[in-house]
Amino acid sequence: MEKFDVHILGCGSALPTTRHFPTSQVVNLRDKLFMIDCGEGTQMQFRRSKLKFSRLNHIFISHLHGDHCFGLPGLISTFGMLGRTAELCIHAHKDMSKYLDPVLDYFCQHLPYKVTLIPFGTKKPELIYEDRSLTVTTIPLKHRVPCCGFLFEEKAERNHIIRDMIDFYQVPVSQMNRIKNGEDFITPEGEVVPNSRLTIPATPPRRYAYCSDTIYTEKIVDQIQGVDLLFHEATFTQAELPRAKETYHTTARQAAQIALTANVKKLLLGHFSARYEDDLIFLQEAKEIFPVCQLAKEGLYINI
Amino acid sequence: MEKFDVHILGCGSALPTTRHFPTSQVVNLRDKLFMIDCGEGTQMQFRRSKLKFSRLNHIFISHLHGDHCFGLPGLISTFGMLGRTAELCIHAHKDMSKYLDPVLDYFCQHLPYKVTLIPFGTKKPELIYEDRSLTVTTIPLKHRVPCCGFLFEEKAERNHIIRDMIDFYQVPVSQMNRIKNGEDFITPEGEVVPNSRLTIPATPPRRYAYCSDTIYTEKIVDQIQGVDLLFHEATFTQAELPRAKETYHTTARQAAQIALTANVKKLLLGHFSARYEDDLIFLQEAKEIFPVCQLAKEGLYINI
Repeated sequence: MEKFDVHILGCGSALPTTRHFPTSQVVNLRDKLFMIDCGEGTQMQFRRSKLKFSRLNHIFISHLHGDHCFGLPGLISTFGMLGRTAELCIHAHKDMSKYLDPVLDYFCQHLPYKVTLIPFGTKKPELIYEDRSLTVTTIPLKHRVPCCGFLFEEKAERNHIIRDMIDFYQVPVSQMNRIKNGEDFITPEGEVVPNSRLTIPATPPRRYAYCSDTIYTEKIVDQIQGVDLLFHEATFTQAELPRAKETYHTTARQAAQIALTANVKKLLLGHFSARYEDDLIFLQEAKEIFPVCQLAKEGLYINI
Repeated sequence: MEKFDVHILGCGSALPTTRHFPTSQVVNLRDKLFMIDCGEGTQMQFRRSKLKFSRLNHIFISHLHGDHCFGLPGLISTFGMLGRTAELCIHAHKDMSKYLDPVLDYFCQHLPYKVTLIPFGTKKPELIYEDRSLTVTTIPLKHRVPCCGFLFEEKAERNHIIRDMIDFYQVPVSQMNRIKNGEDFITPEGEVVPNSRLTIPATPPRRYAYCSDTIYTEKIVDQIQGVDLLFHEATFTQAELPRAKETYHTTARQAAQIALTANVKKLLLGHFSARYEDDLIFLQEAKEIFPVCQLAKEGLYINI
């Protein structure tokens, strides 16, 4: 199966601790890298991950709070010093330019590559990236500032042909595309060979949903229905529900409820508040509702 | 002796590695903290150091390259979230406002404390901080952009009186200030009691010089003559001398030469280029010229 990994570079919240860096992740799909959020220290964590800097061409920023974007100037500068020439696309709310333009103007005047800001709206899902094997769509969230999660969806592969059967039935090359697309084969004698005898189905496309930062909202459920992996923020435990509501964050219990309602295959919790000494409390709370659950931590990677 | 420590938070250069954070240090004089430079990740390293955030009121930025100041937005935001109310003074080149003002305007509109930029010139030494026990003076350096080091100097303490002798000679309270300042005591009978019989000398004032980033320049020698500790950048080894000159940096051998010429008591090397796998090469090279030499590393603190 083709590579589809999620690497956690940081999973703390606004106040970094000695255990957690602020938010950043890298999605590795077939050795193309996609970064989600870029908190302070991301470039150091990225280097620790041993992933190749040069494979990253797109960064998606969920919202303009410092713990999700203060790592961008350092990362961009470092890429320049390493002699990068390929364009780097940063997908974010339009205000990103207010933050980044002055920094780049002052510190990165002679950058050997182009940084392109690609703004997205945050009111409704938008397709913001597409290539041969992947689409990325925004997931509108509810936070104190405009904020979106991201849905990474593999494109469906075509069926794989069974070479011996193709030879046996002497399927002409001109028919191969139709066979791969699932059509039956009709022999010159009029015999119908069902597609299932000629091909094996491709692995179903996989989906990863990243949802941070957000208050509990069931509006996202339709869009993330049945994803293979859901990363959902769990800044607080249920004991701090009032604080979660006040700051537009989610509790671990609420994150598990979303996972259950959306019938996802696996839940990954993160964006932990600095107030908790031990993250296990999030896991225990979530597992009461949704057992296929794991805690994010720096250096973790999950194969989807 | 009163506390006078230097804590290394980061001692790498522009490209961070898995071993080194970019530049930041904290000087702790009698539990008042003074930060020098603030590269990305400084707030995390600061937290690891166990030093108290609330004891820091002054930050000195040597120059406006990202690896010396990209940690400021995160640090300032975090202080705000922790409810800081005391003014934070940032001493830097006047262009600091071009970088910091837009960031603070966007991300820190409701900061519960005041951030004050205090610009300094970089052409000649300027006294930029003074309190009862300390002065901080800039050390003009030669780098690709305007850049200064910093000289931390304890103020001389007055002599300590020997209580028993004061009582014995019945020195009146009105004379005590003069005695502490080193004058002799003349008894009502005209007998001269030498000051050395009445007091013990205070410990001599200590001095710490921070010199980074800079090309080799002997112009700094007079100002740092005989300091107790000299931190000097050693970005390269002598084998990379052409590269050091080209980028306005210093080799380990050159840093040792400065230490020798300035007759300092101890040399601390840092700002190591990412190209070296093992920092020991800097130490070996410097020790051939100046043996009282140590390598900076993250988490190290030195008592002066």
